[in-house]
Amino acid sequence: QALTHVDEAGAARMVDVSDKGVDARTAVATGVVRTTTEVVELLRSDDLPKGDALATARIAGIMAAKRTPDLVPLCHPIAISGVRVDLETGDAEVRITATVRTTDRTGVEMEALTAVTGAGLALHDMVKAVDPAAVLDGVRVERKEGGKTGIWVRNAPEAQEENQ
Amino acid sequence: QALTHVDEAGAARMVDVSDKGVDARTAVATGVVRTTTEVVELLRSDDLPKGDALATARIAGIMAAKRTPDLVPLCHPIAISGVRVDLETGDAEVRITATVRTTDRTGVEMEALTAVTGAGLALHDMVKAVDPAAVLDGVRVERKEGGKTGIWVRNAPEAQEENQ
Amino acid sequence: QALTHVDEAGAARMVDVSDKGVDARTAVATGVVRTTTEVVELLRSDDLPKGDALATARIAGIMAAKRTPDLVPLCHPIAISGVRVDLETGDAEVRITATVRTTDRTGVEMEALTAVTGAGLALHDMVKAVDPAAVLDGVRVERKEGGKTGIWVRNAPEAQEENQ
Amino acid sequence: QALTHVDEAGAARMVDVSDKGVDARTAVATGVVRTTTEVVELLRSDDLPKGDALATARIAGIMAAKRTPDLVPLCHPIAISGVRVDLETGDAEVRITATVRTTDRTGVEMEALTAVTGAGLALHDMVKAVDPAAVLDGVRVERKEGGKTGIWVRNAPEAQEENQ
Amino acid sequence: QALTHVDEAGAARMVDVSDKGVDARTAVATGVVRTTTEVVELLRSDDLPKGDALATARIAGIMAAKRTPDLVPLCHPIAISGVRVDLETGDAEVRITATVRTTDRTGVEMEALTAVTGAGLALHDMVKAVDPAAVLDGVRVERKEGGKTGIWVRNAPEAQEENQ
Amino acid sequence: QALTHVDEAGAARMVDVSDKGVDARTAVATGVVRTTTEVVELLRSDDLPKGDALATARIAGIMAAKRTPDLVPLCHPIAISGVRVDLETGDAEVRITATVRTTDRTGVEMEALTAVTGAGLALHDMVKAVDPAAVLDGVRVERKEGGKTGIWVRNAPEAQEENQ
Repeated sequence: QALTHVDEAGAARMVDVSDKGVDARTAVATGVVRTTTEVVELLRSDDLPKGDALATARIAGIMAAKRTPDLVPLCHPIAISGVRVDLETGDAEVRITATVRTTDRTGVEMEALTAVTGAGLALHDMVKAVDPAAVLDGVRVERKEGGKTGIWVRNAPEAQEENQ
Repeated sequence: QALTHVDEAGAARMVDVSDKGVDARTAVATGVVRTTTEVVELLRSDDLPKGDALATARIAGIMAAKRTPDLVPLCHPIAISGVRVDLETGDAEVRITATVRTTDRTGVEMEALTAVTGAGLALHDMVKAVDPAAVLDGVRVERKEGGKTGIWVRNAPEAQEENQ
Repeated sequence: QALTHVDEAGAARMVDVSDKGVDARTAVATGVVRTTTEVVELLRSDDLPKGDALATARIAGIMAAKRTPDLVPLCHPIAISGVRVDLETGDAEVRITATVRTTDRTGVEMEALTAVTGAGLALHDMVKAVDPAAVLDGVRVERKEGGKTGIWVRNAPEAQEENQ
Repeated sequence: QALTHVDEAGAARMVDVSDKGVDARTAVATGVVRTTTEVVELLRSDDLPKGDALATARIAGIMAAKRTPDLVPLCHPIAISGVRVDLETGDAEVRITATVRTTDRTGVEMEALTAVTGAGLALHDMVKAVDPAAVLDGVRVERKEGGKTGIWVRNAPEAQEENQ
Repeated sequence: QALTHVDEAGAARMVDVSDKGVDARTAVATGVVRTTTEVVELLRSDDLPKGDALATARIAGIMAAKRTPDLVPLCHPIAISGVRVDLETGDAEVRITATVRTTDRTGVEMEALTAVTGAGLALHDMVKAVDPAAVLDGVRVERKEGGKTGIWVRNAPEAQEENQ
Repeated sequence: QALTHVDEAGAARMVDVSDKGVDARTAVATGVVRTTTEVVELLRSDDLPKGDALATARIAGIMAAKRTPDLVPLCHPIAISGVRVDLETGDAEVRITATVRTTDRTGVEMEALTAVTGAGLALHDMVKAVDPAAVLDGVRVERKEGGKTGIWVRNAPEAQEENQ
C-alpha cells in the first residue's frame, strides 16, 4: 500500500480525479473542545440579548470548509453544496459536528474536518483569555458516503477490522 | 469574568488592542495525529529519493499560521516574524509542535494553534485513503511569553491552579 | 415564511443545494456612487494617456465577484462563467451595473451584488482624498433568470406586488 | 486637484506612504439595508433559541474589514487593531455602523466601508429568498480621526463647505 | 483579430463561457530558474535527513495553481482535477514542469503557468540570500489539449507557422 | 554557506526576523513578456475609448504583491507601503518593472518579483487566444536597498563578483 498523494519517487502531487464520477457525497466529522464549566456558561451567554459566541464558532466552521483547498496543499477545489456545523455544550466541553455535502468528483472528509477545526479554533480564540489551557480533541471522520467506495462508518465492525 | 470577544450585550467584536504594547512574543502549541504503524512508515518514506509527505505537512502548518486572521473571525491580523513546525514520528502517531514569534500588539497562540491544525489536516488528507480513522488529538497551547501577562506554561504549578 | 439560511432553531447553515439542477443562470445588479462633478471628471481622466481609474473599478468588481464565497458566510462556492461590470459616468455620479452568469446549482445574485460593491469600494478608495463624503447607494438586484423560479425583474408588476 | 491613486500619466499605483507617521486612527462608516417589516422580524429571530442571522452579518462585516486589501486594488495592507459592527433594526430596515481602529500609516475609512458592505451583503444573502428587492443604501464614511489631516466629520459645517 | 478579454470599447470583462462544453482538458507549462552550481547543490540537500527545499517549491506550485482565479483578474474559477509539478536540477538551474488537468469549460494553461511561477517564486525566495541574481526564465505553455480547439503543441510545425 | 529557509536538518521554516530592524526598504524587479507585434498593438488599444488591457496587468501586479505571503510558503507577511508596476511596450514585447517599498523587518524582493509575475500572468491570459506561444522571461531583481545589507544592484562590479 502507498500514499496516493506522493508519486513513486515520493514527490507530492494533487492526484488526478478526472476519471472519478460526479456523485452526491456526504461526510460527517466531529471534535470536542475541552475547557471549564465556567467557560461553557460564558459561551452559552444565556442571559444576554445577543449570544454571538457560539454563532461565531458555527460560522467560522462553515467558512473554513470553503477554505479547505487553500489550507490543505494537495486537496482539490470542489463545489460544496451544503454545510452544517452543530455545537452541543456539555458540562465542561463543546462538542462539534460538521456535515458537508457535495456533488463532485471527490469526497468531502477534508472539508468536514476543516470545518471542525475552524469551529474549534474560533472557540479556542474566544476562551483563551479565560482558559488558556483549553484543548481541541478527537478531530476525526465519523461517516462518509457516496462515490465508488460507498459508505464508511467509524466503529462499524468492518471499519474497526480494517483499522486494526 | 466575561468573554473579551463579545461586548456586554453579547455581540461579537474584534477587541481594540491599540493601547497594547508592541512586544516580542512567542507561543508554542502542540497536537498529535493518531494513525497506524503502517501509515507512519509510509509518511516517513525512508526508502524514496523524495520524501515530500512530512514536508507537505510542515509547509501546510507554516502557511496556515499566515492565514489565521482569515480563519478565526475575531483574530487580529498581525505581523508574524517566524514560524517553525516540527514533526516527530512515533510508533503509530505523528506529534506536531508549532512555534510562532511576533513583535506586535497581541499574542500568537492562535497562530501556533492554527499551524498545528494546518499540519494536522494535511496529514489527515495524505493518510485518509489508507487510514480513514486517523484522529487529530490534543491541540493546545504549551507555552506563551511576552506582553503584559508574561510567561504562561501548561502544567506549571500556578497555571494548574489557575485552571482548576 | 422563514429564512432559509438558519434552521428551525435559528442556527446558521449553508443550505444544501445538492438536489437543485445545474442550469444556466444570470443576475444583474446595480448601484451608484454619488460624488462631485469635479471627481467624475478626474475619474474619466479624459486628457491622460492612461486612464486606469475606471478600469481599476471594473477589475475590482470582476475580482470581487470571484471572492463572493469568501466574503458572504453562507454563500456556496460556484463556478462563475462570465462577469461584466459596466460603469456609466453621470454629472456627479458613477452608475455601476454588474452582470454575472453561471451554469451551476444556485443563482448568482450575490455574485452580482458583490461585484457592484467591489467596484463601489474601489471608487470610494480612489476618490476619498478629494471627496471624503462620497456615498454608495442603491445596491440591489435588477433582474435574475434561470433555475426553478424563472425570471424575476425589479418593478415588474408581479414583483412589485410580491414585495408590498 | 488630482486623484492620488493614479500618476501623472493616469497609471494606477499604490501610493507610497513610507513617510506617513504611525498614528492611532479611527473611522466610522454606516449603511442601511432596506427590506420589509416581515424580513426584519425574521432577522431578529426573537422566538428562536439561537438567533444567528444578525450575528452572521456582524461577523461577515468584521471579517470583510480584514479582507480590504484583497478587495480594493490600491489599498495598503494594514494592521487593524479593532473592529465593531453594530446592527440596529428599524421598522423595515437594518442600519449598519462599523468602527475600525488602527495604529498604522494610513486611515481606515476603506476598512470601515468594507465592513459595512460585508455586513450588508450577508444580510442581502439571508433575506434574498424572502425579499429579492432588498437594497443596500447610503454606504458612507461618517467620521474619521487621526493622522495628519485630523478629524473629519460628515455634515460638520467645515466638512459641508469642503464638499460643495 | 481582437483580444477576447476586452469588449469592443476596450473594457475588461470575464468572457462568458456558459456555452462551452465540459471537457477533459490538460495543459503543460514550463520555466527555468537560472542560478549557480553552489545553489543547486544546496537545493538538492543530498546529505540532509530532510530535504524540504525542492518539496517547498513543488507544493508552492501546486497551491499556486489553485489560486489562479485570485491572481489573474479575468480568469474563470475552475475545478482543477489534478496537478503535478516536476523539478529537474541541472548544473546551474532548476527546470520546472507543471501539468494541470480539469474537466470544465475552459482550458488550464493559466493554471499551469501560475503553477510554474509559484514554484519559481518559491525557489527565488529560498535562494535569494545566497544568489540574489537568480532569474526565472522561459515561463511558457508547452502543450494543451481538450476543448474545441483540440491539441496545441509548441514548436509543432503548424504551431510555429501560426506564431510567425 | 547554507539556505536560510531550511534548518540544519533540512526542514523548511519561516526564518525568525524578530531581531531585524524596522527600516525603509525598496526593491525593483523586472521581467518581459515576449509575444508578437500584432499582440502588442492589440494590448495598446490605441484606437479604443477604453484601454483596459494594460491597466488590467498593472492592477494584477499590484494586487499580486499583496498576496506574496499567501503564495510563497516561507515568506513573512509584511506591511507594503507602496507599489508601482510600469509596463513599456516594445516591438514584440512588454517590459514589466515593479517597484515595492516597505518599512518593515524584511526586504521586499519577493513582493517585487511576485508583482512582475502577476502582471506577466495577466498578460499571458489576455493574449493567449491570439498568441498561445507567448513567453515570460527574465524575472529577476534589479536593485534592492535598505536593511543591514545596504544596496545591491544587478551587474554592479561588486555584485557580479559576489555572484561568480
